[in-house]
Amino acid sequence: MPNSLKAKIRTIPNWPKPGIMFRDITTLIQDNEGFKHLLDLLYERYKSFSIGKVAGIEARGFIIGSALADRLGVGFVPVRKKGKLPAGTIQEEYEKEYGSDIIEIHKDAIKPDERILLIDDLVATGGTALAACKLIKKAGGNIVECGFVVDLPELGGRKKIEDAGFKTFHLVGFEGE
Amino acid sequence: MPNSLKAKIRTIPNWPKPGIMFRDITTLIQDNEGFKHLLDLLYERYKSFSIGKVAGIEARGFIIGSALADRLGVGFVPVRKKGKLPAGTIQEEYEKEYGSDIIEIHKDAIKPDERILLIDDLVATGGTALAACKLIKKAGGNIVECGFVVDLPELGGRKKIEDAGFKTFHLVGFEGE
Repeated sequence: MPNSLKAKIRTIPNWPKPGIMFRDITTLIQDNEGFKHLLDLLYERYKSFSIGKVAGIEARGFIIGSALADRLGVGFVPVRKKGKLPAGTIQEEYEKEYGSDIIEIHKDAIKPDERILLIDDLVATGGTALAACKLIKKAGGNIVECGFVVDLPELGGRKKIEDAGFKTFHLVGFEGE
Repeated sequence: MPNSLKAKIRTIPNWPKPGIMFRDITTLIQDNEGFKHLLDLLYERYKSFSIGKVAGIEARGFIIGSALADRLGVGFVPVRKKGKLPAGTIQEEYEKEYGSDIIEIHKDAIKPDERILLIDDLVATGGTALAACKLIKKAGGNIVECGFVVDLPELGGRKKIEDAGFKTFHLVGFEGE
């Protein structure tokens, strides 16, 4: 049950700045039963989706995305911050609260029309995940879905991603708490 | 066979700076058969080691460490750069080529005497991995072994880690090439 996952996620008030209730998945991930359960639920969701590869967003998306890729028997593509990937890359720029940021994937990471599952730990405003969707599309891939462990619906990220034409899924939501 | 892994690792000359032959594991990780094979070999190595948790070093160590943790049915502990973990941490400082760096884990990530497998993609000079070993020991854990995909023996990192009393293992070595 996703509720038992939720109970293993720690909330840190006022981090990284005052007013933010930070949802910390490390307590879930470091828990033997919790981590297995999380992967069981994601595998159940995606086992029949004919996923070609899993892409994960740096850095917590690597933790969940790579284990899920292994469960699904497919490769893993890291979506990284600018300057971290050594070979030729494709970039996507996006606006943040203050200024803009750039994410990258390797040019050769995705085959034409490959079915890509994008994974991150949490969707808040959705800026990075939406940029990752556009980046993967630009690289020639098809985003099957964006899967998150945690959704913060009050921040509207999932709606923004869906309004842009991409599907989303999440296991746990935090709203008004 | 580790040799078939080696063939899937890309070498990028002069990255991140002139004179460095960068061994890029993303080509292995994104390859469906390669990623599965890598995990098969690591699982074979560690399935009978009674591992309590896997710790992985940010960020490429997350990719391999978390999938291996899932294979082993245990939780995953991220070893992160300073300032990335939201709750109370334990730190370890270590010297780099220019200046020093700090890595952290959450204080509550490791149980007393828990058997920890430390994973990273590559060992070069070994500074970060040795600091991670000391950090985990400081947190009360026992390092069962440090497992790497790639060793660069000319840089002496594995020897340095072993001289400090920790065991190491690697699947692929690059020497004089």
